[in-house]
Amino acid sequence: MAVYTEVSDEALRAFLAEYDIGALLAFRGIAEGVENSNYALKTSAGDYVLTLYEKRVNPRELPWFLGLMRHLVAHGLSAPEPVAGRDGQALRELAGRPAAICTFLPGVWPRRIRPEHCGPLGAALAGLHRAGQGFAEVRPNGLGPAAWAPLLDRCRADGEAVQAGLIAELDAALAGILAAWPVAGALPVGQIHADLFPDNVFFLEEGGTPRVSGLIDFYFACTDLLAYDVAVCLNAWCFEADRSFNVTKARAILRAYAAVRPLSEAELAALPVLCRGAAIRFLLTRLYDWVNTPPGAMVTRKDPLEYLHKLRFFGHAQSPEALGA
Amino acid sequence: MAVYTEVSDEALRAFLAEYDIGALLAFRGIAEGVENSNYALKTSAGDYVLTLYEKRVNPRELPWFLGLMRHLVAHGLSAPEPVAGRDGQALRELAGRPAAICTFLPGVWPRRIRPEHCGPLGAALAGLHRAGQGFAEVRPNGLGPAAWAPLLDRCRADGEAVQAGLIAELDAALAGILAAWPVAGALPVGQIHADLFPDNVFFLEEGGTPRVSGLIDFYFACTDLLAYDVAVCLNAWCFEADRSFNVTKARAILRAYAAVRPLSEAELAALPVLCRGAAIRFLLTRLYDWVNTPPGAMVTRKDPLEYLHKLRFFGHAQSPEALGA
Repeated sequence: MAVYTEVSDEALRAFLAEYDIGALLAFRGIAEGVENSNYALKTSAGDYVLTLYEKRVNPRELPWFLGLMRHLVAHGLSAPEPVAGRDGQALRELAGRPAAICTFLPGVWPRRIRPEHCGPLGAALAGLHRAGQGFAEVRPNGLGPAAWAPLLDRCRADGEAVQAGLIAELDAALAGILAAWPVAGALPVGQIHADLFPDNVFFLEEGGTPRVSGLIDFYFACTDLLAYDVAVCLNAWCFEADRSFNVTKARAILRAYAAVRPLSEAELAALPVLCRGAAIRFLLTRLYDWVNTPPGAMVTRKDPLEYLHKLRFFGHAQSPEALGA
Repeated sequence: MAVYTEVSDEALRAFLAEYDIGALLAFRGIAEGVENSNYALKTSAGDYVLTLYEKRVNPRELPWFLGLMRHLVAHGLSAPEPVAGRDGQALRELAGRPAAICTFLPGVWPRRIRPEHCGPLGAALAGLHRAGQGFAEVRPNGLGPAAWAPLLDRCRADGEAVQAGLIAELDAALAGILAAWPVAGALPVGQIHADLFPDNVFFLEEGGTPRVSGLIDFYFACTDLLAYDVAVCLNAWCFEADRSFNVTKARAILRAYAAVRPLSEAELAALPVLCRGAAIRFLLTRLYDWVNTPPGAMVTRKDPLEYLHKLRFFGHAQSPEALGA
C-alpha cells in the first residue's frame, strides 16, 4: 500500500494551479512503494507522478534528493525529473506533507530477474555514478556502517524471538565487517542510490532484449563508496528463490558496470566485505521493522531472515572471484 | 491496497500478445479498489486498466459483468469498455486468475462531495439505467433483501461486541424494512450499479463545474429495482462528516435523475424504505467483514456503525419529501 495520505479535490486543484502542466485528467493512487504516498497524475500535458513524503523522509533532506535527481537527469540518466512550479520551486506542501511532482518514466520493473536484466542494470548503475560526479553536495549515509551497531542494539531484546542465536550471530558478523571495512579515502566515493532493488529499475524490451528505461526512488541516495552500491545490487539481484547465488548474474552486473566505470583493484578486493555490509544493512532494517511493526499495521513486513542467508553466503565467499569478479 | 496477485513478466508479455493493443510501456499497481487487483497498463496504443478478479467475484458471473459494461458503453454510458483479444474474447486468465483489460477512463473521484457533484451524479445514474434497458440477461441481486436476514444471523454472535444492543436494533429494523419492501412488480426493474459510491464516479471540471467523466466498478451490478440504486446514492453521497443528511445534495440527485428518467409516484413513495434497505445492506456487509476480518489482514475495514446512523436517520425520515423528493 502506498497511499498513506488522502488529497482533497480542492487541495489538489490549488496545488496544480501552481504549475504550468495543463489541466487535470486523472489522479490515481499507485500501489507500489512503501515509504511515501505516490499518485499517478495525468494532465493534458502528459503523465506525472505526485509524491507526498511521509514521516520516514526528513523534510530538510528533500532539497538534496530533488537536487540530485535534477542533476542526474541533466547529466543523461533516465530518472524522474522534479517539475518546478511557476515560482521555480519543485518542492511544496500538499495535504500537510512535503510534496513534489516528477516526470513519469515508462517501463516495468522485473518480477523475476533473468541474467539478461543484469548487464543493463550494471551499466545503468555505473551511469548513475558517472552522472552524479558533478553533484558536490554531500549527504552522509544514514544507514551506513556507523548506523549498524545502534540498529542491532535496538533489536537486541526482541530479535532473539525471530530466530534463536540470531543476535549472537549478528554481533560476530558485524564485528568482522566493521574490522574489515575500507578506511576513509581507500575507495572512490560519490553519489549512490543505496537501494537499487528490482522494483526501482524499469525495463522495456526491444525485440526480446531488456533495456533499462529508468531508475526511480532516490530517497535512500547518499554520498558513500561507489562500490557499496554494486554490493547492494549483488545482494538484491543475484540470489535465486532457492537462496543460491547466481554467479552468472553477478558477472553480468560487474562486467557491464566496469565497461562504463572500471572498478579499481582496491574496489574489487573490498567487494566481499561490502557485500556482507550490504547484507547486514538490509537484515538490520528489516529486523528492526519486523520487531517494531504492530501485526495490524497496513504494511508488508519483509522477511529479515532472507538477508541472514545472504550474509552467511558472503561470509563464506571471501574472494572477489567467488562473486563473479 | 488493491494488488493481491503479482503478475510475472513472462505471463504479462504472453497475455498482452493475445491483444492488438501495441507494445507494453508501463504496468503499475493501482492502490484504489478493494475487491480485485488493478493495474494501470500503458501501451503504445494508449492507457488501459488490467483487472485480475480475486476470490470475492464468482468467475461464472464475469461474462455477465463484462457483457453489461460493453452494452452500457455501446449505449452511450462512459464506463470501462472490455477490450477483446484477437480471438474476440475479453475474459481470459492471468496469474491463475480470471482477467480482463478495459479502456482507461479519465477523471478523478471526489474526496469531498459538494452539492455540485450531486446533479451530475443523479443524471449519470439515470443515464446508466436508460443505457441498461436493452440488456436482457438477469443477474439477481446477491446482496438484496433476501440476503439480509442470513447475513445478520452470521453476525449475531460477534456483532454484539461491536456495540451493545446492536443486534436487537437490527432485528427490529430489518423486520420493518422487509414488511414494507415493495412487492414484485410494483416498481420498475432493470440493471443497477448497486455500489455507486464516490470512489466509483470520476469527474472532470470544466470552468470550475464538475461533470461526470465516467462510472467504474460494475462488479456488484445486478438486476433489481431501479429506485434502489437511487437509494444507495442517497446513502453514499448525502451525509456530511457530522452525520447530518444534506437535503440539498439529495434534492440535486433526485431532480437531475428525474430529468433523465422520471421517477413514478410509486417509486417516490417507496424511497424511504429503499433508503433504509440500502443502509442495512451496507451496514450488514461491513459488520460481517468487521467481525470476520483478522486484525492483521491487509484490508481496510470500513466502520459498520456509520451505516447504523444512516439507518436510524432513514427510520425517522419516513416521507419522500424529507429525503429531498
